[in-house]
Amino acid sequence: MFNPRLGITMGDPSGVGPETIVKAWQSPQVHAACRPFVIGSSDVLRRAVDLLGAEFTVVTVDAVTQINDDPTTLPCLEIESKTAAQAPPARCDPRGGQAAYEAVVLAARLAQTQQIDGIVTAPLNKAALQAAGHQYPGHTELLADCCEAENTAMMLYLEKEAEDHSGSSEAWGVVHTTLHMAMRDIFKHLSTKRIVRCAALADWAIRTLKTLPENQSPRIGVCALNPHAGEDGLFGDEEQQIIAPAVAAALREGLNVSGPFPADSLVAQADRGAFDVLVAMYHDQGHIPLKLLGMHRAVNITLGLPIVRTSASHGTAFDRAWQGIADADGMIAAIRLAAKLTRHRDCSSVGASEGG
Amino acid sequence: MFNPRLGITMGDPSGVGPETIVKAWQSPQVHAACRPFVIGSSDVLRRAVDLLGAEFTVVTVDAVTQINDDPTTLPCLEIESKTAAQAPPARCDPRGGQAAYEAVVLAARLAQTQQIDGIVTAPLNKAALQAAGHQYPGHTELLADCCEAENTAMMLYLEKEAEDHSGSSEAWGVVHTTLHMAMRDIFKHLSTKRIVRCAALADWAIRTLKTLPENQSPRIGVCALNPHAGEDGLFGDEEQQIIAPAVAAALREGLNVSGPFPADSLVAQADRGAFDVLVAMYHDQGHIPLKLLGMHRAVNITLGLPIVRTSASHGTAFDRAWQGIADADGMIAAIRLAAKLTRHRDCSSVGASEGG
Repeated sequence: MFNPRLGITMGDPSGVGPETIVKAWQSPQVHAACRPFVIGSSDVLRRAVDLLGAEFTVVTVDAVTQINDDPTTLPCLEIESKTAAQAPPARCDPRGGQAAYEAVVLAARLAQTQQIDGIVTAPLNKAALQAAGHQYPGHTELLADCCEAENTAMMLYLEKEAEDHSGSSEAWGVVHTTLHMAMRDIFKHLSTKRIVRCAALADWAIRTLKTLPENQSPRIGVCALNPHAGEDGLFGDEEQQIIAPAVAAALREGLNVSGPFPADSLVAQADRGAFDVLVAMYHDQGHIPLKLLGMHRAVNITLGLPIVRTSASHGTAFDRAWQGIADADGMIAAIRLAAKLTRHRDCSSVGASEGG
Repeated sequence: MFNPRLGITMGDPSGVGPETIVKAWQSPQVHAACRPFVIGSSDVLRRAVDLLGAEFTVVTVDAVTQINDDPTTLPCLEIESKTAAQAPPARCDPRGGQAAYEAVVLAARLAQTQQIDGIVTAPLNKAALQAAGHQYPGHTELLADCCEAENTAMMLYLEKEAEDHSGSSEAWGVVHTTLHMAMRDIFKHLSTKRIVRCAALADWAIRTLKTLPENQSPRIGVCALNPHAGEDGLFGDEEQQIIAPAVAAALREGLNVSGPFPADSLVAQADRGAFDVLVAMYHDQGHIPLKLLGMHRAVNITLGLPIVRTSASHGTAFDRAWQGIADADGMIAAIRLAAKLTRHRDCSSVGASEGG
């Protein structure tokens, strides 16, 4: 049986990344799902192992082929920079930004050359990254650049915990049409083609992540931009001019898609099981509900890359870092979902006929 | 002890309003909280009583002074129009719109002349209202006009159910800086003065609705407009130009306010008890989380009127109307909160020095 090889980037050494990796390593779920290893600094990982009193050894490796898959050891492929361990805990420092950058670039190269099957990234700090001279707003844009990928999309995906008896759907996600930009700027970035691309990526992701009833395609709901879906044009016309034509085009492509619907009621319906995935028009439209429901358990998935990449949805959390209190649920969920996604590795050409 | 007299407008006779009123009438909570009566059509209410097999009689009254407070009878003050009962169930009809309109106008007059202490509105249908010749986008705007009130604000407020053991806060709300308009138009409606006014109204509402620890002022969180609160100006500058100055001004007014914070994490924090109320910049920013958490139990409160007004947050729901299945939880919650709000009836001058 296919057992995916996943590279976990260590993230910013000053943040919660190393701790969440060491905690996740202790989870049998992680080793049942994949063959993981870390890309980063052995010295920093050893410090996290000591902090948490974990019962395993960090082993430095020089190549993926050297990894010995044994959950009692933690293999670390070293990055080039040797100053990661000098970055002070819980502080923004260019040495931390540089270490995070190098791990991501190395991981992307290993994945593109198929030495590994996918990557899971621990959080980096944007200010530290930029202090180290790398001008990216975050992982999504850095990875798009590494892979020369255009038209990627960020998905948040939440698998509910089994003990949740609220009648809620067991898992759903949101794909974002626009992401890291001013609200003022979303109007010029929304396009029919972009929404169709996001719906196609949403379809691909759900087919890979979720076990669907036989003959059922992923149920995709498309959010309106304006309140009350524009109230028949009274509160804006993007629904009529851009979003409804995108839904019609996606239907012609064979997707099981509907909308645009008012986002407030659509989100509530998705959480009650009426949709597998929504297409949101802007960052907060998707982030507000999934952060509210999942806090740190929601997983960030970059769709549209030629490689698999997931991460926990939280950041470096300097206010909690290196105290031994960081929660690894998001990291564990990110590893489990990355392993699932490697079943259909390359989504870069999904809906490409409509991409643009 | 003060026992408030509340007028419940019947809403559109074709929608779920009459049923939710009759169901709510059966709740002892309602009669413990206030002395209620209905403003609408006795014929329509009798039809709802029959549908639900309720054990009480609808009694027509000609004036508030004629009401006999006895939970086994349902007093109805008749509106002028006699065609409400001819509006077909579950359909948009101008006779339904006219009936809804007349009940609201009459209720507002009774409240303004202090014949009653507050009003609770059952849902109207915007298309039916407009088909009857009344060009309002909804209750909020119609009531502002009836009361000649400027600078009102819509609040959604949710009291969690006692059986919810999720560690969530027991009650929180959101006041909306902008509401029924295209997203494209919010930029010209956001102003420092408007945000300060909304924070002051939020403070007033929480002091009235919630029992706070001694010496604790309502904890008000102000949402950013842009993702990541604008990321230091990288994704928009409304935080720096408009919202942060509003927070500073509200602090000078003595409010316990902080922000602007990224809306996705702020909403999650409010739900975990860190804030009593948020100030949202646009409709969906407040509606997405409260509809997701509360569905029909969130209560709509119009702040800034010289009278008390609440409603359930759902609409006429023609797809569910007159089948006996409508849920009255929202109506019951709206009545309970209106009764609380009558303790400090008039909020029209709250924060007025900053209003504009």
